Amino acid sequence: MKNTLTLKVVLCVVGGLLLPLLPQAQQSISITSPNRFVALTATVATNGNVQYRVSYKNNTFIEPSLLGFSLSRPKITLSQFSIVSVDSSTTDETWQPVWGEVSRIRNHYKALSLLLKDKSGVLVKVHFRVFNEGVGFRYEFPKQENLTHFVVADELTQFNLAGDYKAFWIPGDYDTNEYLYNTTKLSEVNAVAAAAKETDIALKSVIGPNAVQTPLMLKTPKGLYINLHEAALVNYPVMHLMLDKKTFTLTSHLVPDAVGNKAYLQTPFQTPWRTINVSDKANDILASKLILNLNEPSKITDVSWIKPQKFIGMWWEMHVGKATWEKASGKHGANTANVKTYIDFASKHGFDGVLVEGWNEGWEDWFGNWKENVFDFITPYPDYNLEELTAYAQQKGVRLIMHHETSGSATNYERWMGKAYKYMNDHQINTVKTGYVGKIIPRGEHHDGQWMVNHYQRVAEKAAEYKIMVEAHEPAHPTGLHRTYPNWLANEAARGNEFNNAPKLGLVPEHETILPFTRLMGGPMDYTPGFFHFQLNQYDATRTTRVKTTLAKQLALYVTMYSPLQMAGDFPENFNKHLDAFQFIKDVPVDWDDTQILEAEPGDYITIARREKGKPNWFLGAISDENSRTTALPLNFLENETTYQATIYRDAENADWQTNPAAYSIEKMTVTNKTTLNLRLAKGGGCAISFRKM
Amino acid sequence: MKNTLTLKVVLCVVGGLLLPLLPQAQQSISITSPNRFVALTATVATNGNVQYRVSYKNNTFIEPSLLGFSLSRPKITLSQFSIVSVDSSTTDETWQPVWGEVSRIRNHYKALSLLLKDKSGVLVKVHFRVFNEGVGFRYEFPKQENLTHFVVADELTQFNLAGDYKAFWIPGDYDTNEYLYNTTKLSEVNAVAAAAKETDIALKSVIGPNAVQTPLMLKTPKGLYINLHEAALVNYPVMHLMLDKKTFTLTSHLVPDAVGNKAYLQTPFQTPWRTINVSDKANDILASKLILNLNEPSKITDVSWIKPQKFIGMWWEMHVGKATWEKASGKHGANTANVKTYIDFASKHGFDGVLVEGWNEGWEDWFGNWKENVFDFITPYPDYNLEELTAYAQQKGVRLIMHHETSGSATNYERWMGKAYKYMNDHQINTVKTGYVGKIIPRGEHHDGQWMVNHYQRVAEKAAEYKIMVEAHEPAHPTGLHRTYPNWLANEAARGNEFNNAPKLGLVPEHETILPFTRLMGGPMDYTPGFFHFQLNQYDATRTTRVKTTLAKQLALYVTMYSPLQMAGDFPENFNKHLDAFQFIKDVPVDWDDTQILEAEPGDYITIARREKGKPNWFLGAISDENSRTTALPLNFLENETTYQATIYRDAENADWQTNPAAYSIEKMTVTNKTTLNLRLAKGGGCAISFRKM
Repeated sequence: MKNTLTLKVVLCVVGGLLLPLLPQAQQSISITSPNRFVALTATVATNGNVQYRVSYKNNTFIEPSLLGFSLSRPKITLSQFSIVSVDSSTTDETWQPVWGEVSRIRNHYKALSLLLKDKSGVLVKVHFRVFNEGVGFRYEFPKQENLTHFVVADELTQFNLAGDYKAFWIPGDYDTNEYLYNTTKLSEVNAVAAAAKETDIALKSVIGPNAVQTPLMLKTPKGLYINLHEAALVNYPVMHLMLDKKTFTLTSHLVPDAVGNKAYLQTPFQTPWRTINVSDKANDILASKLILNLNEPSKITDVSWIKPQKFIGMWWEMHVGKATWEKASGKHGANTANVKTYIDFASKHGFDGVLVEGWNEGWEDWFGNWKENVFDFITPYPDYNLEELTAYAQQKGVRLIMHHETSGSATNYERWMGKAYKYMNDHQINTVKTGYVGKIIPRGEHHDGQWMVNHYQRVAEKAAEYKIMVEAHEPAHPTGLHRTYPNWLANEAARGNEFNNAPKLGLVPEHETILPFTRLMGGPMDYTPGFFHFQLNQYDATRTTRVKTTLAKQLALYVTMYSPLQMAGDFPENFNKHLDAFQFIKDVPVDWDDTQILEAEPGDYITIARREKGKPNWFLGAISDENSRTTALPLNFLENETTYQATIYRDAENADWQTNPAAYSIEKMTVTNKTTLNLRLAKGGGCAISFRKM
Repeated sequence: MKNTLTLKVVLCVVGGLLLPLLPQAQQSISITSPNRFVALTATVATNGNVQYRVSYKNNTFIEPSLLGFSLSRPKITLSQFSIVSVDSSTTDETWQPVWGEVSRIRNHYKALSLLLKDKSGVLVKVHFRVFNEGVGFRYEFPKQENLTHFVVADELTQFNLAGDYKAFWIPGDYDTNEYLYNTTKLSEVNAVAAAAKETDIALKSVIGPNAVQTPLMLKTPKGLYINLHEAALVNYPVMHLMLDKKTFTLTSHLVPDAVGNKAYLQTPFQTPWRTINVSDKANDILASKLILNLNEPSKITDVSWIKPQKFIGMWWEMHVGKATWEKASGKHGANTANVKTYIDFASKHGFDGVLVEGWNEGWEDWFGNWKENVFDFITPYPDYNLEELTAYAQQKGVRLIMHHETSGSATNYERWMGKAYKYMNDHQINTVKTGYVGKIIPRGEHHDGQWMVNHYQRVAEKAAEYKIMVEAHEPAHPTGLHRTYPNWLANEAARGNEFNNAPKLGLVPEHETILPFTRLMGGPMDYTPGFFHFQLNQYDATRTTRVKTTLAKQLALYVTMYSPLQMAGDFPENFNKHLDAFQFIKDVPVDWDDTQILEAEPGDYITIARREKGKPNWFLGAISDENSRTTALPLNFLENETTYQATIYRDAENADWQTNPAAYSIEKMTVTNKTTLNLRLAKGGGCAISFRKM
């Protein structure tokens, strides 16, 4: 955060509520969002149960929902409270992220804090913040005489939905979030059946038929859009949600550790925020900065070395069978000569970085055996001359991007991190892609447990010590921590574009219309768009999989899938066949001053326009699902009385993700903010447009 | 190891055994020790079961005992073998340890190796070595096509004892070996009942009523002494033993990890050696170098920086309540001024080191909460000026000894080790006492599991990188790895002298007569002898505990409890009251050219004489149990035709551990190797003698 401008913070005790004097009566306190659309009511029932309910424009969409905790040490349930005191306040401030979709973020909410005393004597605070765009709430365990260290058995938080809403969900799983999204009514959720189909995922730890993950996108029959997630996941396990299919109540299900406990905590402690985005416009869900606002400001003071970037990589060659990570195959991709051609290409086309996977010893035996000491992160294969490549890249104005696959062995990675980051410093490499493919070590821990959540944060912190930027693959779902650690540029944490190559289910054309409503709510994704070759049997005739978009849609993803770290996923050989289309990837920025969500419906389509950071140019991406789509798009987001040259990369008339994906046309035209563009997106198609101020 | 002199290694196939041609017949192969006292017979039964039996002077003391494995991945039991090939050899070599009880060690054995093929196709080698002093055997999983990674569910090794022997045992436990020894017949073992009495031990993970730990000391009714243990415990969990009280069969019980597996292995792999010491003389058990011989030579090539040492410490003050580790109490022991008085005392009396516990931030909240991040190992308390003390110690010719209590949080320690050892280097500290008090993190792991066994080794290796010597408290039981890592000077890993202060059971006078037959079989112990004050209510009137030896016995322990790292456990104030007796502690060396076990009976008495490394002086220690004892001791270990001045520190006539422990007399006399000394040890008493060549 570059600057925090606190406009106004008002703290006061809610007047007239002499609550402690009325212990037997049910007590209710309400607050509303600044625009009064969102209203939250907290209630302490006569039996001491604390509940909250939430409405949007007077329609209750979350019915009274319980709050509470079950502890395993001390062995008590915190569910029978009396109110000790109540605070409320208003905050309206604006801050500037180091990088992002917009350059200024307004943080405007009304807050309500209840200090509660459980019958056990334990004090718990519940903090509610009500924004125009939804609600965040968290628990605080303040420092107190009778509770210091404690162990969480379960968090009892509920989201008691008011109906059988449509849900965009993936199965609750302790170790992976790389599922395809399912779109069903809540009553139709069957996570075990959905997971069983996913044979492309190597490691699954499915929780049960009724468990789903957050961000969970919901839509009510009346057209209200709701998103449930969490913000600021620090020193705590991931929250999955357990669904009661009769009452539509979702109850938090925290990921256990190796011995079945959920979290080891010490007062004072604050849980992550539980977040509820709501609007009657889907666009508002995508535009929301609620989760970022609930995270802490940057802990890194000197952020001058943190740079959004575009990169290519020695990576997709391995996925499609042109090369291999391991050397023993005889098709080792990461050899000095190959990587030089990538550096040449990156340099020629103005890319910042070249990711190289398979550069280090160990790939011959790295996966599937719960092996602790696989990689040392400092030993290149003998055919990979890192010194030579470092010099070559420097001369070409490109940086290598480091790859640290841990194979899930976090203990081993923690032992090597310091040396590995020093090694990166020594070779002018300042970005690392980490990976956690496989079962976690410490054995019995999960990708989504408290220990690993702390690990990912330790990586971001340790990397920052060495001025290294991080993007993690296979981590826990992001929760906006990139505000606090702006060197933590992106994450995978969902089914990425690479799954186009997965033999069984692969991807589906609607996937990218759901991800911004789900996975991306927590932060940027390294989705690796930019595939220009669609049949994936180019190097391995047995492959039946294919990329399930048009080429134009691959371009549009650079705008619709926000990330400060964008890969051009395909390899030079394939880009070279479509250099005219590739121009969009060269031009599109990775940092923005403004973002306008123009059209959006989860599962169907998304159209987003963004203004380049520090420049007047706009870029637009529009994508469709498996259906074709026409839309008349007023360009009213453009600056008044300004003329732009629009370069439109659109699906050709006969384009179709299945039959003719590479058919596109490129058209230049002059436009103003009075222009309305008629766009036609093919089935699985898209459109990408750059607007250059003339 | 300074030098390995291989005299002779003969490898040959056992003639005439065309074993693979006779798969249905029972097949037996025998080898005997070089002196023919110990004989081992391996048998493959018609059902494929492999067994071994062992005799001593023609008396079978281990009846046919099964060998085998149960794997959980691949899920197979390895128990039905056929013999593929048989090798035998003889080795007779002599090597020199970096430090030790003797300066040259002979490694003389006959070896038999069976290459076995299980019905699953898995190849397993069993290596037997038969020494004059007993047997070692281990399993090898050679590199093979159909087995690479595998997971051990159980090792099926048995020790089928031929009778209801007397046993000196402690309860089998995954997390502690700090029990008092029980002396019962095997049929009377009740480990759960024994453990239940041990309320002084904070963390127990008792395995069950029939589980006991190794080293397990046994004595047959006919007077045969047997010791069961293991050597070279590397990348494998500790072996405990499960007793069948009807058949007297002991079966290996490996310590599980967090998910119940025992070991994650990859071919080629060799298990630790299972060791069987045997003799009709108890002395031979103590003199045996079998376990050291079964360990690998030093992996550290430059050993010039490794030095045996004597030290005092800011430590016992905390145990008796004079001071505290934590600062908040107002009685913080490790303040600059206090530690200077220790440095002064150490310097004045020629000690090498001063251990300082409680020097670093964190002791206010370090124990009992499974807290991961307790200490950072580089942040002294504000009243502990390490720079000042480093300079002061250097000027006085003394080194500080570092204390790293991990509180069981090995993950945290591994993150800090590098920095912590650098910090030690920066302060001229080259010895660290580590500690693992509390439940292990990674949570679900145990002190004795494979992960922690690897951790202790990582500590020794990492410390060696920084030329740091290590002694670990609360580690897994030692197995002779100090040969391989000679910077790993000592361990606790048993009930130390500090337990005199434990409120419930404390220690018993026989304890030190058992330890050399049990715990010390695996390597040196930091027992911390040298208590000169016996009532422990000096600073805390509520303490009812006391030291259960005489003062003379405390002196004798410096000889009977071998260690290259000897503490003078009490504090200067108490030593100053008995400086004449303290002279023995000043004089006694910590490294030896020769050792003679003169008298020994487990549980009753031990008398040992040792010759100072590189010098003609001898030192003798004699200790008794709760009974007084007289002995006429021929000094025939002394050099021929040489006169020595003996200084005898003996119990006074009226000494008694209970009623008059501090009563001693010091007598000087001239002796030769023709002299016979008549010694009388008090109840719980001892005698220490220095022999200086005149």
